Amino acid sequence: MAPSETTNEAGPLTRVRLEVSYDGTEFSGWAAQPDRRTVQTTIEHALATALRLPSVSLTVAGRTDAGVHAAGQVAHVDLPAPPEDTLLRRLAGLLPPDVRVNAVTPVPAAFDARFGALWRRYEYRISDAQGGVDPLRRHDTLAWTRRLNERAMADAAARMVGLRDFAAFCKRREGATTIRTLLDLDVRRDRDLVSCTVRADAFCHSMVRSLVGALLAVGEGRRPVDWPAQLLDRRERANDVAVAPAHGLTLVEVGYPPDAELAARAEQTRARRGSHAETPSCHG
Amino acid sequence: MAPSETTNEAGPLTRVRLEVSYDGTEFSGWAAQPDRRTVQTTIEHALATALRLPSVSLTVAGRTDAGVHAAGQVAHVDLPAPPEDTLLRRLAGLLPPDVRVNAVTPVPAAFDARFGALWRRYEYRISDAQGGVDPLRRHDTLAWTRRLNERAMADAAARMVGLRDFAAFCKRREGATTIRTLLDLDVRRDRDLVSCTVRADAFCHSMVRSLVGALLAVGEGRRPVDWPAQLLDRRERANDVAVAPAHGLTLVEVGYPPDAELAARAEQTRARRGSHAETPSCHG
Repeated sequence: MAPSETTNEAGPLTRVRLEVSYDGTEFSGWAAQPDRRTVQTTIEHALATALRLPSVSLTVAGRTDAGVHAAGQVAHVDLPAPPEDTLLRRLAGLLPPDVRVNAVTPVPAAFDARFGALWRRYEYRISDAQGGVDPLRRHDTLAWTRRLNERAMADAAARMVGLRDFAAFCKRREGATTIRTLLDLDVRRDRDLVSCTVRADAFCHSMVRSLVGALLAVGEGRRPVDWPAQLLDRRERANDVAVAPAHGLTLVEVGYPPDAELAARAEQTRARRGSHAETPSCHG
Repeated sequence: MAPSETTNEAGPLTRVRLEVSYDGTEFSGWAAQPDRRTVQTTIEHALATALRLPSVSLTVAGRTDAGVHAAGQVAHVDLPAPPEDTLLRRLAGLLPPDVRVNAVTPVPAAFDARFGALWRRYEYRISDAQGGVDPLRRHDTLAWTRRLNERAMADAAARMVGLRDFAAFCKRREGATTIRTLLDLDVRRDRDLVSCTVRADAFCHSMVRSLVGALLAVGEGRRPVDWPAQLLDRRERANDVAVAPAHGLTLVEVGYPPDAELAARAEQTRARRGSHAETPSCHG
């Protein structure tokens, strides 16, 4: 769906920011794919129906993989007119219960959900309870049968923070950089729940789940504490790192600069990461 | 299933306390019923399989209704031998993911999950977000389309606490008392989530969901703040009180006295509430 399909010859477009949350269990990820149920297509159809438009086209901060959830996903769309106050309620009625649009806000034309983002924050939930995962949170929590040493995991995590080449933790894509700034990688325990919180300017494909996979190997004692950081010396995907399952992962928040800096940020991101088609956004 | 089926002629029985949690969505409640999937039958079968017994019989603190969840349900069972350390893991493997046994602890024979309980605490979750309920919590949160005044609800709730006749909020059962001590009834808001927490010595059938139904009528302004408390003057079920849907309700915790007071407490409860068959335990 080309963005031009939403242009309006009668006047200028209104750029609108959407706050989105979803249970990724029954979706084949965010990005539209033929014959698959995706979050993007589901929201685009509901928006087009609510606004009586032939189609709309969303740009998203984080193109999450199949099975990955979102609590604070952000997208933008260009509309022929500012949205009415009733749009949120109408969308709530049109959307299936596993995806919600929580806010619809007109924003400056310079706002770009993808290229304007300063950082993305993900949370990965793991339960090592002997009896298994809390049934009410089993859709967004990984069950781990061995007890995890969360201090060793936190120690290993702290050694990876900074501007690094994460090639070992990325699915290789031709022409795409694997250099990222890992702003935070924290591990915390609350009783039987071990949470890994990851924040970076952007993530390459499968990076968060690979980082968590490496930390799990440390947490159960299979690998030494300095092993994940040592992998940063490699220039290619480390096949000895397991990619943690999708359902433990949730995109929690996306950070943007103040309005006055939006345009500069988007330009900077485009320039740094290369052409649009090659830019990895925030994969799960 | 009669308790006598679990007696062991070779020696004395060991009473064991189970901490249980479940997602009530796919269960026809706790209590065993022919041809229905219930929590009780599911756990009894898993326990019997794990222990290679022909059958076991659970006694529970709160016989939750169909669709009601539990985070801190308590049950007891009499076993021919103390449980092995591996029982928890074996149960985790045998049980379906929507029900978990979180702890298995030998207790004094005077411990009675039902008659020994001092109080039960339930939580009812309601979201009045314009966009709808958080998709990852939609299984245990009620969606409410009108904005709720949580202060009015908290005010109405505070007027109902104490030793009262809750006939207006109970499904009538011949010979069963509807007098209960409501220890707490709190209403709190955290952004779009309104939580009602209820604690009482016991609840009659549909009582928690009727209390919440009355508070919702106050919260959306259909009824005055003193209306729920005024209903306490009625001697029969108030048909103008809606019973809130089951899926917003979770049994969170059950309180017991110290071991030394267990026997006295169980005797006291039996005497106060009448015969075993008539005793309402903790219905959702």
